[in-house]
Order: sequence, then structure tokens, then C-alpha cells
Amino acid sequence: MQKDNRFESGLHEECGVFGAYDFSGQDVASSIYYGLFALQHRGQQTCGIAVTDTSAKMKITAKKGPGLVNDVFSEETIEELKGNLGVGHVQYSADKGKGSVSAQPLVINYVKGTLAISYNGSLVNGADLKDELTRTGAIFQSENDSEVIAYHIARERINSKNVQGAVKNAMKKMQGAYAIVVASPRKLIGVRDPYGLKPLCIGKADDAYFLASESCALSAIGAEFIRDVEPGEIVSITKDGIASDKSMVMEKEKRAHCIFEYIYFARPDSVIDNMNVYHSRILAGKALAKSYPVEADLVVGVPDSGIAAAKGYAEGSGIPYGIAFHKNSYVGRTFIKPKQSQRESSVKIKLNVLSEVVKGKRVIMVDDSIVRGTTCANIIKMLKAAGATEVHVRVSSPPFLYPCYFGTDVPSNEVLIAHSHSQEEICEMIGADSLGYMELDKLQETVGDICYCDACFTGKYPMAIPENIIE
Amino acid sequence: MQKDNRFESGLHEECGVFGAYDFSGQDVASSIYYGLFALQHRGQQTCGIAVTDTSAKMKITAKKGPGLVNDVFSEETIEELKGNLGVGHVQYSADKGKGSVSAQPLVINYVKGTLAISYNGSLVNGADLKDELTRTGAIFQSENDSEVIAYHIARERINSKNVQGAVKNAMKKMQGAYAIVVASPRKLIGVRDPYGLKPLCIGKADDAYFLASESCALSAIGAEFIRDVEPGEIVSITKDGIASDKSMVMEKEKRAHCIFEYIYFARPDSVIDNMNVYHSRILAGKALAKSYPVEADLVVGVPDSGIAAAKGYAEGSGIPYGIAFHKNSYVGRTFIKPKQSQRESSVKIKLNVLSEVVKGKRVIMVDDSIVRGTTCANIIKMLKAAGATEVHVRVSSPPFLYPCYFGTDVPSNEVLIAHSHSQEEICEMIGADSLGYMELDKLQETVGDICYCDACFTGKYPMAIPENIIE
Amino acid sequence: MQKDNRFESGLHEECGVFGAYDFSGQDVASSIYYGLFALQHRGQQTCGIAVTDTSAKMKITAKKGPGLVNDVFSEETIEELKGNLGVGHVQYSADKGKGSVSAQPLVINYVKGTLAISYNGSLVNGADLKDELTRTGAIFQSENDSEVIAYHIARERINSKNVQGAVKNAMKKMQGAYAIVVASPRKLIGVRDPYGLKPLCIGKADDAYFLASESCALSAIGAEFIRDVEPGEIVSITKDGIASDKSMVMEKEKRAHCIFEYIYFARPDSVIDNMNVYHSRILAGKALAKSYPVEADLVVGVPDSGIAAAKGYAEGSGIPYGIAFHKNSYVGRTFIKPKQSQRESSVKIKLNVLSEVVKGKRVIMVDDSIVRGTTCANIIKMLKAAGATEVHVRVSSPPFLYPCYFGTDVPSNEVLIAHSHSQEEICEMIGADSLGYMELDKLQETVGDICYCDACFTGKYPMAIPENIIE
Amino acid sequence: MQKDNRFESGLHEECGVFGAYDFSGQDVASSIYYGLFALQHRGQQTCGIAVTDTSAKMKITAKKGPGLVNDVFSEETIEELKGNLGVGHVQYSADKGKGSVSAQPLVINYVKGTLAISYNGSLVNGADLKDELTRTGAIFQSENDSEVIAYHIARERINSKNVQGAVKNAMKKMQGAYAIVVASPRKLIGVRDPYGLKPLCIGKADDAYFLASESCALSAIGAEFIRDVEPGEIVSITKDGIASDKSMVMEKEKRAHCIFEYIYFARPDSVIDNMNVYHSRILAGKALAKSYPVEADLVVGVPDSGIAAAKGYAEGSGIPYGIAFHKNSYVGRTFIKPKQSQRESSVKIKLNVLSEVVKGKRVIMVDDSIVRGTTCANIIKMLKAAGATEVHVRVSSPPFLYPCYFGTDVPSNEVLIAHSHSQEEICEMIGADSLGYMELDKLQETVGDICYCDACFTGKYPMAIPENIIE
Repeated sequence: MQKDNRFESGLHEECGVFGAYDFSGQDVASSIYYGLFALQHRGQQTCGIAVTDTSAKMKITAKKGPGLVNDVFSEETIEELKGNLGVGHVQYSADKGKGSVSAQPLVINYVKGTLAISYNGSLVNGADLKDELTRTGAIFQSENDSEVIAYHIARERINSKNVQGAVKNAMKKMQGAYAIVVASPRKLIGVRDPYGLKPLCIGKADDAYFLASESCALSAIGAEFIRDVEPGEIVSITKDGIASDKSMVMEKEKRAHCIFEYIYFARPDSVIDNMNVYHSRILAGKALAKSYPVEADLVVGVPDSGIAAAKGYAEGSGIPYGIAFHKNSYVGRTFIKPKQSQRESSVKIKLNVLSEVVKGKRVIMVDDSIVRGTTCANIIKMLKAAGATEVHVRVSSPPFLYPCYFGTDVPSNEVLIAHSHSQEEICEMIGADSLGYMELDKLQETVGDICYCDACFTGKYPMAIPENIIE
Repeated sequence: MQKDNRFESGLHEECGVFGAYDFSGQDVASSIYYGLFALQHRGQQTCGIAVTDTSAKMKITAKKGPGLVNDVFSEETIEELKGNLGVGHVQYSADKGKGSVSAQPLVINYVKGTLAISYNGSLVNGADLKDELTRTGAIFQSENDSEVIAYHIARERINSKNVQGAVKNAMKKMQGAYAIVVASPRKLIGVRDPYGLKPLCIGKADDAYFLASESCALSAIGAEFIRDVEPGEIVSITKDGIASDKSMVMEKEKRAHCIFEYIYFARPDSVIDNMNVYHSRILAGKALAKSYPVEADLVVGVPDSGIAAAKGYAEGSGIPYGIAFHKNSYVGRTFIKPKQSQRESSVKIKLNVLSEVVKGKRVIMVDDSIVRGTTCANIIKMLKAAGATEVHVRVSSPPFLYPCYFGTDVPSNEVLIAHSHSQEEICEMIGADSLGYMELDKLQETVGDICYCDACFTGKYPMAIPENIIE
Repeated sequence: MQKDNRFESGLHEECGVFGAYDFSGQDVASSIYYGLFALQHRGQQTCGIAVTDTSAKMKITAKKGPGLVNDVFSEETIEELKGNLGVGHVQYSADKGKGSVSAQPLVINYVKGTLAISYNGSLVNGADLKDELTRTGAIFQSENDSEVIAYHIARERINSKNVQGAVKNAMKKMQGAYAIVVASPRKLIGVRDPYGLKPLCIGKADDAYFLASESCALSAIGAEFIRDVEPGEIVSITKDGIASDKSMVMEKEKRAHCIFEYIYFARPDSVIDNMNVYHSRILAGKALAKSYPVEADLVVGVPDSGIAAAKGYAEGSGIPYGIAFHKNSYVGRTFIKPKQSQRESSVKIKLNVLSEVVKGKRVIMVDDSIVRGTTCANIIKMLKAAGATEVHVRVSSPPFLYPCYFGTDVPSNEVLIAHSHSQEEICEMIGADSLGYMELDKLQETVGDICYCDACFTGKYPMAIPENIIE
Repeated sequence: MQKDNRFESGLHEECGVFGAYDFSGQDVASSIYYGLFALQHRGQQTCGIAVTDTSAKMKITAKKGPGLVNDVFSEETIEELKGNLGVGHVQYSADKGKGSVSAQPLVINYVKGTLAISYNGSLVNGADLKDELTRTGAIFQSENDSEVIAYHIARERINSKNVQGAVKNAMKKMQGAYAIVVASPRKLIGVRDPYGLKPLCIGKADDAYFLASESCALSAIGAEFIRDVEPGEIVSITKDGIASDKSMVMEKEKRAHCIFEYIYFARPDSVIDNMNVYHSRILAGKALAKSYPVEADLVVGVPDSGIAAAKGYAEGSGIPYGIAFHKNSYVGRTFIKPKQSQRESSVKIKLNVLSEVVKGKRVIMVDDSIVRGTTCANIIKMLKAAGATEVHVRVSSPPFLYPCYFGTDVPSNEVLIAHSHSQEEICEMIGADSLGYMELDKLQETVGDICYCDACFTGKYPMAIPENIIE
């Protein structure tokens, strides 16, 4: 699957979060900006930054809106965001028709002052919690769960000693997947759901601490990766340093890290829960090579996510790795889509085959997933037009069969090719000479010893899914 | 005072509201757009429209943002706002640094579904109500009172038979000035505070009903003016027609309509509480003519609000009315302000004197108010440079001396020229040959028999002002 | 005719020009900006500024584009336009479909360096000159005559002593209406066509000289009006002061100043060729009062241009002058036009009747012209709906019957109501109780002793019109 | 060298050109749009499209402006560009301070009607030709040579039978590098300079012919590559098909194709003058492997242009190819540059090292060129920080030592690291363990038997360079 297909046919991660606290008092808005920039692949529809100055009055300044990080922020707006503590957010999904109301961070005034909240995830009991809250008079201005979380923190804060206590009590009510960073006027707090479905890690540079969805955001700002936040852990960064409450941390075997972070969502230069994403994709390629060997001349990957798995397949099979595609660097959001009737196709405009490389060759083409099948079919057609004599498709994930309730926007079943077709049928539909999907029981070897959630392939969810959200 | 000075030195009205319900099912977004266009003088910083389709699922679609009505809306965005019931809003003041979050209408999900609220006013007990709400776990995403009102409606709705009942119970807690229009999925509701500080009226055209801050918005859309909403009245427009709850209506003598709507805020082509605004200004001019007669050749008004009062002075005094100024039609928001050091001045760029008219004449110049005095001084200088031999200034309002707690953004006392200077001093400072302010006891005759609030001149507020908001 | 109707149905002036030279070395871009701001009514489609620093290398810096002056220029872009000599331009008509290529000033490199040219007018032999030029290899990048003029100056420069000499020789070939300001790296030059069809005047402030289409632009920047450039005169402003070449100046009786500048185009606060525009409109109103007396209660003017003539009619007739209309100050370019099917109409959104003023009254309504008749009909309908018992229309210009070849964009004959209907028919079509157009032989008394062009009413053009441009 | 460094430190190609003629009458604007999209790497500062309808009046419609293709064009503007024949352009360099005047295509009216010209290149005698033209009265509105070319075509057209004849006569006067496509109302013409310095090729799809700077633009629109335009050839596409005038074609041995197209400018999926760009880079990598062998564990390429050469080095040396970098896909024009004082660096934000891949490895890093050396030094530092034990740099071009006069924007000598430092010094300055530049005498083997221009390395220009342009 190509990253650029996100806007057309692919899977969508909901969000990326980032937090920063500079003890030396320097402004953090630009670090948050670069951090979000590195997390842009996790959400392209809205973004925002909220900051506060820990040495001044308890006031949070925020700027957010629809668009990419470099659409929403300019040198001038970054300059205006004064403060040495703050959080940022990139989001895939905005409630359409409600303007920019639901861009995050959510900035609230509440009983103890003010808070900014950046949230990535999905609460399976979100609708229930919302109902409960509305029954006691709450109002909601957006569709996402961030307000639900804010209300819980606000209500728990009344009887809690401090914000982190309120966050903890709120977590006891929240079921689902989440990574949350909270900026209170004097604290930066980070938490992950006890299953560890969503990633969050800690970094440090000079006098500043950082929290980020992925470690690549730490690299981008020259910060050192310290460690992952543990699933269920509550990290509080105050002027006294880092404190940690691990009372809600579950045993390792119950954890359920999202396998799709490794397969597709995360950047290959990130390390999540001690597993290097690039390495995981290499292992996936190797596993595919073992499961589905085929005689061929060349292994190629579909940019961007298929590249590493293709490299792995090549290493596993001994068949040479090749670069078969040129991806247009200027393809972006505002690209005018070709009409059906035109000679041009979106795939051709984004990707071109290096015919020199594939001409006369039997090609193994590795991609991370097949959603609708149309993009894949087009690419195979292009390879063959360029002279590839055979195209064997290897997919570094098992077929999608079940919905994700944890914040991944999988298209509905009718659209998923694997839902209504056998592997043989798909192979024929996409025009491949052979097709191999990652075997379910090989997934483990692609991520070392971590415990993961593979419910989208198996239907086995790590927690009970309430009836009211099962369609 | 010139309308265009609003952005520099003047008084600011906070908002204008508009509501529409078309029983025949036609979209109302364009009517709301034109209605807001006619109310643009009441607020230029943000605007918004929220609509719902009474024949469909209970869903509200909204679009709002910073800017003038024709900046925020395009033909395309109006087209997307499908629905035959809706509310709109123009607002002077956005909370800066919080993005566009606080543009109205406020759209909420609450215990009984969804609501859109447009609100013009200021609650004197707003801060207290907010404190009370936060103590029970409420969160606030903006600085204005609209969320306070929304919470009260939401909480009251739990034990009320219907929305209008909840609105009524909410009104019992709210003290201050307000005009509110509420769109629920099947109802359009309009209310005014019991003192009638803020205006609101009802119109009709074909199968549609409208609510508007001023009747000029009804004219703009070709609707007939039906009547004012009574102070304290709750008007509910449903598919069964208009219903009215007048149980909170006070006796007429206790009402306190804002006198400044007549003097300056409202458009001259509006009728508010049965008093024609233009006529009121004519009467003001006549009263000035009686109080401060002077021998002169010409009466001129400072555009735009001074024009009608000048006409009145001319009629009252028998001295000919003249057109002394050309106002540049292209002066707008983005106008680059001249620097102190330049030959150019903002006043000169906006206004030019028709020297032909004033040359060799003794001129009576009528304006609606004097805030800082600098604009007035500049205009007098221009008149004299153009050959006016005398300039007698007549102001159609008494001097500002007290803060307004009801939503009018009066500059702080230090800036108000009348606060620290006598009438004689002001006359000298602005370079006038004589100066006359409207006499307090003549105000009544400018507005017929209506009861009005003149606290900004007298300090006598129609209701108790809580200590915590008195600076 | 309303100014805001320009975009719909009215007459269009093509351009306004401005020039500035500050001997003290100060930047002139901001003065040009404010000057163009004051001339904005002469053209709203493109604008531009070009400046040069007389103490530096011969380099002209320019910024131009589509839109109003405050759309195209920001504080930042004005800041970037460094230089103490420059010219500016506002233009009605852009060649559509050619991008912003034809915005002026036209900046050229030519045999002797570089020039910036701002031009207002129309050459009746423009097409012929263009043909001649192309026959010798010239290329044209826009549709307007500015390149024709530039080529002539460039070619004449080869054998001329200086720029003003080249301009003079170019003028000998150019037939038509024009006012041109030219910035060469060390000189500011201004010329008018020998008939004086287009206005141009000279101003001064401190160490700076200015050239402007109308004197109102001088007032806006605090400059003193010195005098008009004489028709046919070539004014050269260099560091040594103003020099003048009057060898092409014609006798006064042959001049043909455009009568429509006085009736409609120019701002009332301008003085053109020693005639005050406001005063001319007053005289026009008086002439109408004499020609078409009628018993009535009130004289009202249609904003903006009808106002002064209405005042004149009132003075002439002794019938009181009244203010019958409120014009919405926020109507601008991006205003969404109501559809035919809507309750709203463009006229209602722009103008509202003050019913208080006209109710029960016999009204004389004065406007400057009737083009299509639809706007006029709508306004009359509004007046009657507001209670006017009679509406007598008086038009301060004779009926349009002939095309203008000098740069005024009159709609084609089919559209002009006066072209195909008698005065009686028009009166009935617009729903007026009586109708009177300015009498041709009264025009002279509205402009004193100046010689004017009234070809649009009479078909008598001051110069021969080539066959090839008569449609 | 990274493509994204173009905006900071790299070399700049001036332009890309595209032409289309659809005999079936279909609009070509969208094909031109996608073609330019594929050529965007050749110029990011302005772009434009001009079209004409061969069955209608001789009228060219154009739209152009500053920005990337998908900034300047929207679905709506493409829709407005009606016509089945047209040309497009992407340009690196706009004359600053002259607005958007100089975006191409240049659209002109001239003696025989109208023309649109897209031009890529640089005329070494451009200044002389311009002088000559101005001496006979020509005016220039931009700094680039497109007007010079237009004038020559226009002047030659007077005595030529047809446009292609005029183009031919113009070519006789033009010395330098160029690829030009011209749209006349009934013809599409394409020419290349006789040395073939700039590329141009012909494609076909259905009933349409295309001309493009690179074949990748043909692929993007689903067109078949037909052949290169020969150096000196004039291709005329009319309704009667393709005609060719080869009278100015030089013998093959005199040709001088720009070697930098292969090394860096062109997309790897293009074929230029029968040489596949990707393959050429593979050969370059192999040549480097032979010239500069070194013991190492891994060969990596700097994205994007270093990738193919790295693959070649790996193939040549037998050392495994690895993927060492993740490039952020969202880096674009509006990216806020980090300040010196910040932890962040531009390089880190764009590129991150996959430490998993390089940890403990001796790495050979291949890049296409070293300009200033700073980016290279930063990348080496990142590799070492990620655990690379050695970093051996191989550069697929010889050191830059001489200016390019043919339209490549090489930074001035002072900035070029190779200009003032020996290879050993550079190696130390960038912190590499060894450094090898492509050997001059190996260049030939990277491009097969084509004759190329390598003046930037050798100072041997294929034609005489006039004194007046040598700085």
C-alpha cells in the first residue's frame, strides 16, 4: 500500500501526539512543530499546537486548523506560541461539516484552571461514557472522544490531589486504545492504554523532555530516545523531573500492541516497544520468502511501505533486490484526480515503472497490504507493460477480515477485496502470476517477543467490544 | 463616531444573531447569509451559520470562522449547508490565541440530541455561573458565555418537557443582557433578556419565519417585519407555527432598552422596540438644536452615524443641511494604517472634505459620540483647512463616563476623553469653536416612550452588578 | 447609478494613474498606495505600483496583480518597494484568460534602460498603430494600448534627446484619450491628450511632487493641489524641479473634457480642469429642477452619485432634501449574487429604504444615469413599498445613445434602455410617475465654461473615429 | 545531492516544457497539467499553461503564476482552459520584484496572429541579441530570453512562408542551449538547439501528439514514447501529422548533451537521447566501484538521486545494497527552516537514518554531487551517530569547477567546496573516511556512445562563450 493512497483507498491511522517541556524556559513550539512534521504520516487533516509558559500566569495559547503542519503554521504563528511546555497533534479525521472545531489539542478551562489534551486512539466505551455524561448535563462540541476524556479528567479532578491523579481515575473508566499527552500549566503528562495498543515514547535533549507517538519525531528534533511509556503507565514531567505511576500497568503477556504499526503505519525509522519497525518489515519479507518461494529474477517493493519488506524478501530468497518504481515527489493533497475517461490514471501520475529494471524479468512485487485491489492491479499492469514477464505479488500482512475498533479507519467490508474473494480469485482479479499473503502464524516472528493485537485478521479483540458499536 | 473607526478607537457591539425556519423545506443558508450581511455592522471578527433539515436525521451542519460574512462564505460553502432551519451569527470579539474555536453559532450534542446556539449579549453573573458549573465538572473551550448558556440549557433539559422549557429554566439563572436564537432539529427558538437590553425581532416571508437582531436584516431578505420579541419572551417556532411563553415578561416600566442601539449601533433603517432608529437620530438632532443653538451657515454630519442627527439639527434649527464629506467606499479591514511619521492620516484616507461646500461657512458638525477625541480633532482640522470659518461640534449622546457590563466594548476610562476632561477642555482639545453634548434629560424625547438603559452616561445600571466583574 | 453596480450593469471607467517623486529620497510606495486607494473607484480589477531609487542603479521594482489595492498590497509588499520615484495604476479591465499579465504599470527595458508606464485612456488609432508595429516585428503580450505607447516611446527614444522628447514624438502619433505617467530612473513625466479627455493634475507636499488622475488622491495623502496638467502638455519632474512642454497644447475651444467625469466617474471631492465635481452635480440638480419641476414633498438621491444632484434639485426647487436610503457598507466584490428564484435581490441587499422618511410622501428620486433600467425599477418598487405615494425620477445625464471610443466601457446598444425606448416607455417600464433626463443644452451650465465631449449623447466625437473600430 | 536541497544549496535546472495537440479535438489542458506534474522537478517557482482551439478563432487562453503546478491550477482553472492544442511550462527562476510577469508560456500577438512559447535554456548571445533588438525599438518586460526568441520569430515571420520557417531563421541567430515548444493557432512546433544541450522528446497517445522535456512526462499521461527530437531539428505537428526539418541538424560527434541531466536533473524513469537515466546512474555507480574500491559492509544512496548510483556501486563491488535513510514525504516548499541555534537541523527533519541498518557497519555512501559540503557533512555525522563505523563517500560526478552558461544555476565559485579545496581537504571537512569523485575519463562509459557537455568539470564549452557574460 502506498502512503499516498491514504486519501483514496487505504487505511487511516487517526492521530499522532507530541509533548514537550523545556526546563530551561525556552519556547517549545518549534520543537513541537518539527515533531509533528515527523509524525505527519499519522494524520494529514488537522493539526495543532498548544503551549504554556510555566513561569507565568496559567494561560494556554493554541493554534490549530485544517491542513498539513506546514499549511497551518508559519514562522509568524510559531513565534506567537510563547511557552516552554506544550502539546501538539496531527489528526486524520475531522468531523466534517463542523468547521475546524474538532482539531486538537483540545484546550479547556475547568475547575482547577486550564489544560491542553492531545489524544490518539478510540474508546470502545466512548459512546457509553458520552451518554452517561450527557445524562448529567454535559455538552459536546465535536464527535471525537477527546471531550469525553477531558470531562472525566475534569470531574475526577474535583476529588483528586492533582492532575495525574485525575488522569488515573479517568483511565479507570476508559476502555480502548489511547495515547494521551496533557499539558497543564506546570506539568506534562503522558499515558498509554494498558494494552499498549497505541505507541508513546519519551525523549530528552539538553534540558527538555519530550513525549512522542513515534521515536522518529525524537530523531527529527535531535532528541535522544529514552524509553517507551509502558502500557498503562502514567508519566508526569514536572520541574522536579520525571515521575511515573505504574499501578495500572498489566503483565506483559496481556498486552496487545497494534501489529499494523509495524506493517504499515509507523515510519521505518521508528522503534516501538523495543522493536525496530524497519527490522520488523525485513523479517516480514523474510517470512514471506520462506512461505511463498518462487523462481524469479528480481524483488521489488511498492513505495513507500513495501520497500523494506521487499528488501527482506530479497535477503531471504537470495533473489536480487531492485528499484522498480519512481514516485513523483510532488504528489500532494491538492493533486487534481484524473477522470475515468482520461488517459491518465492516479497511479501512473504517482508512480512510474523503471522499465530498464524490469524488462524481461520475472518480478516479485512486495506490498504491505491489499485493500480494494485496484491500485495493485494497476501497478501490475504497469509492470507488465514495462516488460516484466511475470509478476508475483507478496503481501506483508494477512488479509483484512475484521473491523478495527481502536482508531484505525479500515474501509467497510464491501470494499475490502479479501472479504468476498478467495486468494485465488484475488490473484486473478489483480492480474498477478501468483499471490501470497503473510501467514497468520508467522506474524509473531516479525515482531520478536512482543504481544500484539491482530484482531483485524483474526477477529480476536483484546478486550470486549460493546454491542452498540458493532455494526 | 464613524463606523469604520470601530477597528481603531470606537465602541464595539458584540454580536448580531439571525434565525430562519422555512416550512416549505427550502434551504435557509442563503437567507441567513444575506441576513448576516445586513447585520455585519454588529460584528466583523467571526461569523457562522448552522443549519439542520427538519425532515431528516437530527444532524446539524455548520460552517464558521474568522472574517467578514463574504470572507467566510462562498457560493460553494453556502450550497453545502443543507437544511431548512438554522441560525447565524456575526461577532465582534474572538478570544485571540484560541484559534477559531469560539466563533458562533455554538453547536452542541447534549442529552436530547443536538442544538445550535447564537447569542448576543453579556451575562453579569457569567463568571459565577461558570465557576458553579466547573465545580460540578464542566469544561469550557472558549471565553464567551455561549457555553455557559448551553450548559444551562443542557442541564435543565434533563428535567424539562421540551427545549423551550429548558431555555426558560436556564433564563431564570442568567442575569444580564441577551438575545439568543436556538436551532434544535425541529424548532427555532428566540429569547430576549427580561430588560430588553438586546434587540430581537420576528419576520415572515412566504412559508418562512425569521428572527433577527435588527429589522434591517428582514428587509434585506424581502421578509416582512412582524413584531419585536418582547423582553423576557420565549418564542418557539415549530411546524405548527409560532408559540410564545410570556411568563417572564416584565412590566414595561422596568425595561431597559440599550439607548446606544438608537444612537449608534443599529442601522438607521431598523426599527427596534417600535422606535425607528433613523427617526430617533432625527429627534436627537432636533434636541441638540434646541439645547445648543448657534448662528451658523451649514449643518453637516460625520458619516455614517452622524448624518441623521445632522439632518435633525438642520430641521430643528432651520440652518441648511449640507454634505461636507466624501467617504472612501473601499476602506476595509485590510487597509494598511499610515505610520505616525507619514503625511497621510487614517482620517484623511477615509474621509475627505468637500471644500466647495464648507468654504467660508460657519459649520455645525454633528457626530454621535466622542471617544478619544483624536478623530474628531482631525476632522475639525480638515474642515478648517477646507475653509470653514467656524466649527461647532454637536454630539448626539451625553459623555461616556461609566463602563458597560452588557456586552458593549467601551475603551477603558483612561482613554475616554470625557472621563478626565471638562466639556470646555474637550472643546479646546479638539479645536472646536463650541461643543454641545446631548443633555441627559433630553434622551427620553429621542426614543419616544420606551424605557432605556443609559448606565454608560449615568452609572445607574438596571440590575445589580456583581462585585467580581467591577474592575 | 450606484457605484456598486459597476460590477453588474453600469459604466466602467478604465483606469486611474498616480505618480510620485520625493526629492528628499523618501520611499514613495506608501504614498502611491494611498493615492491609488483614493482612485480605487476608477478601476477595481487590477492594480500595481512600480518604483525606482533615483540615487541608485537604474532598476525598477514593481508589484501588481488582480484585485483591489488592499488585496494586492500588504505592509510587507509596500515595504519591499524601495524607491523615491514611482508610478501606480488601478484598472477596470484585465484581459481575461491571460493571467495577470496586463496589470499596469507596464515595466519595460528598452534601448535607454528602463521605464514604468501607467496609462488611462483609449487610442482610437490603437489598432492601426499596433498593426504598423507588428509589421516591423513587434510582439504584444496584452490587449491594452500600454504596449503600443511603450513601443512608440522606445522607438522615438532612439533619435530623441531625452525621454520627454520621445514621449512628445510618440504623442504625435497617438490619437485618442489618454493620461500617462512615466517613471524613468531619474524622471517623472506626465502627459494628457490634447483634447483633455482624461484628467491629470499635479500636487506637492514637502519635498515631493505628485501626479494624479483626480485631486482627491492628493487630498488623501495630504498634498496640495497645484494645477491640472494642461491638455497636450508634457510635464517633466526631475531633481531640478518641474519643466513643461506646452507645444502640443491646443486652444481651449477645441478641448473636449469628458462630461461623464463630472456626472459620474470622478469623486465629488475632486476638482477637474478647474471645475469642482460636487458643485457640477449640484448645478446639474438645479438644471433638472428648472427643466422638470414637479409638485412633491421630498427630493432624494440614489447613493452614491445621485446624492449631490438630488441636493442640487432640492436647492433649485425649494423642495426639502431627504435621506431615503441606507447603503450596506460591507457590500464588496465577493458578495454572492442572489439567484433569480430567491426572495433576496442584489438591490435590496445593497440598499434599504428608510421608510420613515418616504412614507406618505411624493418623492423625487435623482440618479446620475439609467443604463439597463432594472436597478432603477427595483429602487422605485422599494420606495413605493415603503409608502412613497409618487416617485418622480430625474436623471442628471441625457440618455446614452452612442458608443464611447475613449475608454469608457458602455454596455452595448441592445442593453441600453434608452437606445430602443422612448422616454415615455422608459418611464412606464421603470414604474415612475414621471421621468426627466438632463437636457442636452443644459449640460454646459453644469460645468461652467469648460469645453466638453458629450459624444455618448450626441454622437459628435471630437476627433475622427477610424472605420475599423466602429462596430 | 537531494532534490529537496534545491531550495537551499543545490543546482537548479531552469525549466521543463511540454506541448500537446489532440487531433480529435479534445481539450489538452489536463494532459499538460499531468505532464508538467511529472516535470515539476525541473522547476518549482512558476508554471503555466496556454491553449488554443484549432477549430475556432485564433485565440490563445493562458493561466500562469508563481508556485507548484498544483498550487497554480485547480480543477476549475483547468476546466477554463479550453482547447486541443497547447503548451506548458515549469520554471525554476522568476525575476523577483517583477510580479508574475515572467512566468511562461509567453503568449504574444504578432504580425501573423498569436503564439505561445515555452522555453528551456539559456542563450549565450542573449544579451547581444537583446541589445540589437532594443536598438531597433524593442521593449522587454522580463529578464529571461523568451522575449528575445519571440521577437526573432516575429521579425523573421514577416519574410517567412510559415511559423516553422520563422523559427528556423530565428534559430540561426540564437546561440546556446534550448528546447522550445511553440503553439500557434493551428500548429505545435518543437525545436532543440543543434548541440542537443537540452532534452526534448515526442510521444503519442490515441489521436494526440506530445512534446516533453523528459519521457517520464509521457509515461505519466499514458503516452507512448516515439523518439527524441534531434538536436537542431524542427518538428511541426499540424492536422496533417508530423513534419520535420533537419537541415540544421549537426553531425553526431559535435553534439553536446548535458551530462548533468543523467547525473542529477532528469528523473530516473526518463530516457534521454536513447540513454536510460536510471541505467546511466547504475553505470556511474559501477564506474565508482571500479575506481574507488574499499572494504565495506554496505552501500547506501542519499535520496533521491544517489539511490541508483548506490545500487550500481553495490552491483559493481558485490557489497550489499542497503536502505539507510527515511525521507520525510511531507517536506515541501513552505517548510520553516530551523534556526542555527536550534537543536533541529534541516537535514535531520528531511532525512533520518535507519540505525538498524547501519549500526556497526562500514558504510559506502553514494551521492550525486557535493556542492557546499555542509549537507554531506551532516549526513555523515548522522550515519556515525547511528553506529556506522566507517563512512566512505562516493560521488557520481566529478568536482564542479566551472560555471555553466547554459541555464543551470550553479552557485558561485566561492561557495563551491571543490573550487578551493583539494579532495583530501574535502574528505576531512565532511568527516568521511574516504572520498572518491567520479573520474572525468569514466564519464563516457556512464552514457554509452553519446557526446556530452562536461564543461562544468572541464571548462571546455561546446561553443564560444561571449566575453560579456563571463564574469
